[in-house]
Amino acid sequence: MATVITISREFGSGGRELGKRLADILGFKYYDREIIEAIAKETSFDEHYIEKTLEGGIGSAVFPITFSHSFGYLTQLDSNYIKLFACQNKIVKSLPEAGDCIIVGRCADTLLAEYNPVKVFVYAAMPSKVERCRERAPKDEHFTDKQLIKRIKKIDKARKQTHDMYSPFSWGDKRGYHLCVNTTDMEIKKLAPVVAEYLKVYIEKAAKQQTDKTEN
Amino acid sequence: MATVITISREFGSGGRELGKRLADILGFKYYDREIIEAIAKETSFDEHYIEKTLEGGIGSAVFPITFSHSFGYLTQLDSNYIKLFACQNKIVKSLPEAGDCIIVGRCADTLLAEYNPVKVFVYAAMPSKVERCRERAPKDEHFTDKQLIKRIKKIDKARKQTHDMYSPFSWGDKRGYHLCVNTTDMEIKKLAPVVAEYLKVYIEKAAKQQTDKTEN
Repeated sequence: MATVITISREFGSGGRELGKRLADILGFKYYDREIIEAIAKETSFDEHYIEKTLEGGIGSAVFPITFSHSFGYLTQLDSNYIKLFACQNKIVKSLPEAGDCIIVGRCADTLLAEYNPVKVFVYAAMPSKVERCRERAPKDEHFTDKQLIKRIKKIDKARKQTHDMYSPFSWGDKRGYHLCVNTTDMEIKKLAPVVAEYLKVYIEKAAKQQTDKTEN
Repeated sequence: MATVITISREFGSGGRELGKRLADILGFKYYDREIIEAIAKETSFDEHYIEKTLEGGIGSAVFPITFSHSFGYLTQLDSNYIKLFACQNKIVKSLPEAGDCIIVGRCADTLLAEYNPVKVFVYAAMPSKVERCRERAPKDEHFTDKQLIKRIKKIDKARKQTHDMYSPFSWGDKRGYHLCVNTTDMEIKKLAPVVAEYLKVYIEKAAKQQTDKTEN
C-alpha cells in the first residue's frame, strides 16, 4: 500500500512549497495544481474557474447558502461547486494507486484515511503570511495589508468549512495531525530537510502498522 | 545570550522524556525536577508537597478559589501556592545564566520571553497517554482507566490555567509554539533525534535574530 503524506496549510504559510520540497527529498509524487488540471480534463470547466470555485467553498455562492436553501434550491455556482468537489474527491482517492505521494489540501487527510496518511499542518503568524503572499504575488497585484489579511482569512475560513464537513477533527486542530510546523519568519528550504527526516519516523511507523495489520 | 528551549506538554505525552533526550543530544542543561529541588532548598516545604501544590494550580485550594475569594481571604493552601509559584518563577528566570538549557513546563516559555526561546508543545491522543502513564506508574498504583483519564484531564486543566494567567497564547494553542509534536503510539527515543535536528534550524534562526538585534 502506498505511503501518503497530506499537507494542510494556512494560506500564505508556505505549505505548498514545503510539500513540493518534501516530495523532491523523499522521492514521492506531488499533487496540488495537478488535481485542478485533472478536474479540467474530466469536466467542461476551465482551470481558473475550478480553482476559484473550489477555493471559495460551498459558502462562496453568489447568494448566501442559507438564503438559497431557504428557497429550497441551489444557485448555479453551488451546483457547479458540488460537481467539481465530487470530481476532485474521486481524483484524490485514486492518486495513491500511482505510488507514494504528497497531497496538498483537498481534504486528502480524510479522503485517504484508509492509507493511514502522515498528516502535517503548516501555519504561521499573520505578518509572516502577508509577507509571503507579497513575495509570491503577480506584479500587477496591489493589495493593501488590510485587503491581503481579509483575503487570507476568507480563504482559510473556506478551507476550514470544507474540511470540517468531512473530518472528525477540525481543520488546524493539532490533535488531527502528526506534526504542526510553524513557518513564521522561516525559510521553507531550510525547514524541508528536517521535516523530511522527521516524517520518515512516522512513515516507518505507519508501514509497520500496515504490516502488522496484514499479518494479523 | 543562552539558547533556551521550552517544552510544554500534556500529562502522559512523554514530553519530559523528550526534553531529557533532547538535552542529551544537543548538549544542553535540562531542568524539570531540578526546579522542585531548588525551591525546596529556598523554602521550608518538602519536595513532594511543592510538586503537588504547584501541579494543582491556584484552583487546587481545599476550598474553591471562588468561595474563598467571596469571603475576601486566601486559604493557607492558596497562600503557599503563591509563595511557591513566585519562588519557582525566580528560579526559572535565573536558569539561562548557567548556559543553554531545556526547561520542561513551569511557564518557562513566557517567563523567559526575552531569550526568544524555541517553544515545543508535546501532545498525544488520550489512549496513548493512558498507556504511557501505566508504563511509568509505581507498582502500587492501581487506577482504573476512568480514574487515570480524570487525573490527566485535571492536571492538564491546572497547567492550562496557570500558563494562561501569564502568556499571550493559550496553553496548547499551536500559534504559541514553533513545533507541535504528536507522540501518539510513538517511541520517544525514535522521535528525539529528528526533533533535535528540527530544533537546530530554529536555534540557528534565533541566534541570527539575536546577532542582528545586537548589531543594530
